[in-house]
Amino acid sequence: MNIDMIREAATRLAGHARHTPLLSSPFLDEIAGRRVLIKPECLQHTGSFKFRGGWSAVSALDPETRERGVIAYSSGNHAQGVAYAAQLHGAPSVIVMPSDAPALKIRNTRALGAEVVLYDRATDSREEIGGRIAEERGLTLIRPYDEPEVIAGQGTCGLEIAADAKACEIDEADVLVCCGGGGLTSGIALACAADHPGLTVRTVEPEGFDDVKRSLESGTIQTNDRRDGSICDAIITPAPGDLTFPIMARLCGPGLTVTEEEALRAMGHAFQRLKLVAEPGGAVALAAALFHGDQLNHDTVIVTITGGNVDAAMFKKALDTLS
Amino acid sequence: MNIDMIREAATRLAGHARHTPLLSSPFLDEIAGRRVLIKPECLQHTGSFKFRGGWSAVSALDPETRERGVIAYSSGNHAQGVAYAAQLHGAPSVIVMPSDAPALKIRNTRALGAEVVLYDRATDSREEIGGRIAEERGLTLIRPYDEPEVIAGQGTCGLEIAADAKACEIDEADVLVCCGGGGLTSGIALACAADHPGLTVRTVEPEGFDDVKRSLESGTIQTNDRRDGSICDAIITPAPGDLTFPIMARLCGPGLTVTEEEALRAMGHAFQRLKLVAEPGGAVALAAALFHGDQLNHDTVIVTITGGNVDAAMFKKALDTLS
Repeated sequence: MNIDMIREAATRLAGHARHTPLLSSPFLDEIAGRRVLIKPECLQHTGSFKFRGGWSAVSALDPETRERGVIAYSSGNHAQGVAYAAQLHGAPSVIVMPSDAPALKIRNTRALGAEVVLYDRATDSREEIGGRIAEERGLTLIRPYDEPEVIAGQGTCGLEIAADAKACEIDEADVLVCCGGGGLTSGIALACAADHPGLTVRTVEPEGFDDVKRSLESGTIQTNDRRDGSICDAIITPAPGDLTFPIMARLCGPGLTVTEEEALRAMGHAFQRLKLVAEPGGAVALAAALFHGDQLNHDTVIVTITGGNVDAAMFKKALDTLS
Repeated sequence: MNIDMIREAATRLAGHARHTPLLSSPFLDEIAGRRVLIKPECLQHTGSFKFRGGWSAVSALDPETRERGVIAYSSGNHAQGVAYAAQLHGAPSVIVMPSDAPALKIRNTRALGAEVVLYDRATDSREEIGGRIAEERGLTLIRPYDEPEVIAGQGTCGLEIAADAKACEIDEADVLVCCGGGGLTSGIALACAADHPGLTVRTVEPEGFDDVKRSLESGTIQTNDRRDGSICDAIITPAPGDLTFPIMARLCGPGLTVTEEEALRAMGHAFQRLKLVAEPGGAVALAAALFHGDQLNHDTVIVTITGGNVDAAMFKKALDTLS
């Protein structure tokens, strides 16, 4: 895993993934007490940064392998990112999803060209089901984060941050990344280390699901006790990845955590001040910038909003936090 | 009013106004039955395209005049656009607003550096109050649309549309613009006529407030019977402007109208598929693209989302249109 893979992914993504802008609002600057720049990956295709990794992985396959198709396990943003990237390549995709996933997510994933295979969380093993289908059809598994070409794809977001921060004449900044398994974080950290070492990447997680923060503190991979029950479902993973953790341990500053209430309030601010739709897991970095500035080290903070795939009921809760 | 003024405004806006991207979603393409490209001016500074005209007008003043300050009558997007543009120029601004304007809008306008002067709609004349202050202090009035430098500023949005449509290899398209007094529409129409004549600008208004549509049909300026009572308040004006109407009459195709319900549904789609916050008046063009495609002439439609300054209560109504 190195910067060259990220640059090669960027070449493959050019003209296909969106180069998302850096946004800002004087109102957010005032709340945060520093300059806040927003990297809105909710505006990426399929509503999250996951399209980058999906495109990178699918486009890296040799044509014959790609033609047989790809497979992923996901009920969320990775599913949509891989499905749409495969569809645009004319490649078949199978997404293995729990049968109790929200109907809209299943419908969306199918509409993006995927064959959705449902399994029962209580009785089935998704690995067993997926493994059998993959073997039968010769599909390539695309893991959500512990996968070099996926990290490379997510890292293209970091190349953009580094270039655009330079264009804004920013010498030093904290870069806050909403962190699940660490694919995006480690990709951005590699890109910034290469292209703009004045940017320090920091992870942000929900309280109670801070496996990455604790792993960074202890120097060894720590796990979460719970795997569900958070509104920040998009970034809840059991532990940082074997590939992603060493990168984060080498390059990232101490991790931060925010409460669910803070994530909802950050969504409200994104609505009111940025005109952006953020999902709870995609808003934790903004929450840290707005409400935990005492833990930041620089006059400028760059904040990823990693996704916007949220249903109306949850979004209303965020709106209710606005005075 | 000509294309050179727009190009000069673009030079003055460079690095200050945002060059907003063209966004898309396969889900919107499917509903519309054609390719849909979104120009999200809700992501512009202050949440609407009005910042362009504000910046253009303030930056066009000679330094001495600018130092004395500017004045505008507005309770909405023009107020915030002018206030912020003036603040960034270090120039004082006075915004004359009705005393029953929403508290948040008054607070926002003040926070953007303006002195807000309130008047009573029932008993006061805003022109009289504003005129007196302007004369006392030597302020320059910036009209919301019938003002050459404002039209020039809004026209920069059209230069971006023309350039980005070319980059997407689009030969012909309808360009739908949410239309109030016609400042944005006439500016975009001038820009497209000069830089990409394959783009036909079409106005979109709410039913019952279709002064521009009727004016285009009759060839003479028509007025609206009602001036309030629409949720699309941002684009409700008494009649097209004396400067803007001749430009629209020369360059624009027939106007379209949509219902308020359709505007709310379009806001729901913008939330779900684009992760954007649109206000009702800013969503009428998207509503026309999604629900009135029979009136369009091309395989591609470019849609402006002109603003996103909407409160939580109204946005919830839009969310409630989602199945």
